[in-house]
Amino acid sequence: MKEPESFADVCELVKAFCEARDWDQFHGPKDLAIGVITEAAELLEHFRFQSDEQSVELLNDPQTREEIEDEIADVLFFLVRFSQRFQVDLPKILLRKLGKSERKYPVEKSKGRSTKYTKL
Amino acid sequence: MKEPESFADVCELVKAFCEARDWDQFHGPKDLAIGVITEAAELLEHFRFQSDEQSVELLNDPQTREEIEDEIADVLFFLVRFSQRFQVDLPKILLRKLGKSERKYPVEKSKGRSTKYTKL
Amino acid sequence: MKEPESFADVCELVKAFCEARDWDQFHGPKDLAIGVITEAAELLEHFRFQSDEQSVELLNDPQTREEIEDEIADVLFFLVRFSQRFQVDLPKILLRKLGKSERKYPVEKSKGRSTKYTKL
Amino acid sequence: MKEPESFADVCELVKAFCEARDWDQFHGPKDLAIGVITEAAELLEHFRFQSDEQSVELLNDPQTREEIEDEIADVLFFLVRFSQRFQVDLPKILLRKLGKSERKYPVEKSKGRSTKYTKL
Repeated sequence: MKEPESFADVCELVKAFCEARDWDQFHGPKDLAIGVITEAAELLEHFRFQSDEQSVELLNDPQTREEIEDEIADVLFFLVRFSQRFQVDLPKILLRKLGKSERKYPVEKSKGRSTKYTKL
Repeated sequence: MKEPESFADVCELVKAFCEARDWDQFHGPKDLAIGVITEAAELLEHFRFQSDEQSVELLNDPQTREEIEDEIADVLFFLVRFSQRFQVDLPKILLRKLGKSERKYPVEKSKGRSTKYTKL
Repeated sequence: MKEPESFADVCELVKAFCEARDWDQFHGPKDLAIGVITEAAELLEHFRFQSDEQSVELLNDPQTREEIEDEIADVLFFLVRFSQRFQVDLPKILLRKLGKSERKYPVEKSKGRSTKYTKL
Repeated sequence: MKEPESFADVCELVKAFCEARDWDQFHGPKDLAIGVITEAAELLEHFRFQSDEQSVELLNDPQTREEIEDEIADVLFFLVRFSQRFQVDLPKILLRKLGKSERKYPVEKSKGRSTKYTKL
């Protein structure tokens, strides 16, 4: 496979992959959201019962890192599918949300703090 | 804000947003994975008790669509943060995972079927 | 193993199981909550890409039913552990929450409707 | 409301609550599993970006404790509903799963270790 150059290129390959398998019929919004959360759980499971230090160390083991990266890819796969099936522009909505977050989390109030905006 | 041109551009803005707030300290792999799944749940909650048809209809209402898109953006935000904090190349791992999926789900076996590869 | 008579009896066995393995040290609130959600995802995964009718049918197959019941048991296990480690009385909090829900969802407004109380 | 005596008693009240609202129609296995995981996420969200020590401290604040207990109750509510709608005996399946776990996690191998059985 020729190396694609960007996120948008890889998304096109995801689309072709699913269309070749006639999978649009399974990719409704509810099942795609279930896809996102079940893969997110497989990602999280790697860190269950692990301290923060141990969690970082897991990423230093090449095999475990690849397993973790595969789970991240699985979550991303379902987000990409959602964007393709229901006309969601991922860079655009991420940018828009970032603008909202800038208003919710002004630097002077949120710097160095993990407090939720509702409690700032 | 000048319109960024690509996913990579928006990711840079996400990075700047977090660094301005000194948030790297909170963004360990375990808490980022928790971020991914808790936002995935907010996405899924929109479709709770909704039929597949109702789920699609939700996306036709502009306000609900924006709420749903914001949840997708929140999931994506934490994936992007994971990639930035722990040197994960999102397009690259998505492409690599797609290669693995092509072997797990050959077209002739998986076409038009949602069966998991372990049962194909 | 002699058949226990009640939920409280089985909870005692869960406690003994964990204490025999010296697992209290791993069962902090954050990791127990991670336990709950990761097992909840394994439960949900059974129904991914399945219609509501297919989801019910899955429970008619004895082996699949046992797999599903095991996932429910895993979720329950972590709730029980939370209750034991942090003095939470499960029947009592379920009853208290039911009282709150009765006020949020008056019969005349919520009968036959899945609408969330915030939109009733 | 007269104080119920046991978990089984409270479960009966849960059943009456849902039947009075004619909610059986919404409580299929797929949506109940979604209920379980979305409430599990609200439980977990309390501990996001919190250290293990901070997570324990949260339980010492009466109001936060009640919020956390309410989320536990919400998860339990959907497990109870699953059990009622699809004839699952919660104490029985928890006991059965405990028996399986005893074989997967023999005391001599798992004492003081959080390692998953697949890696023991």
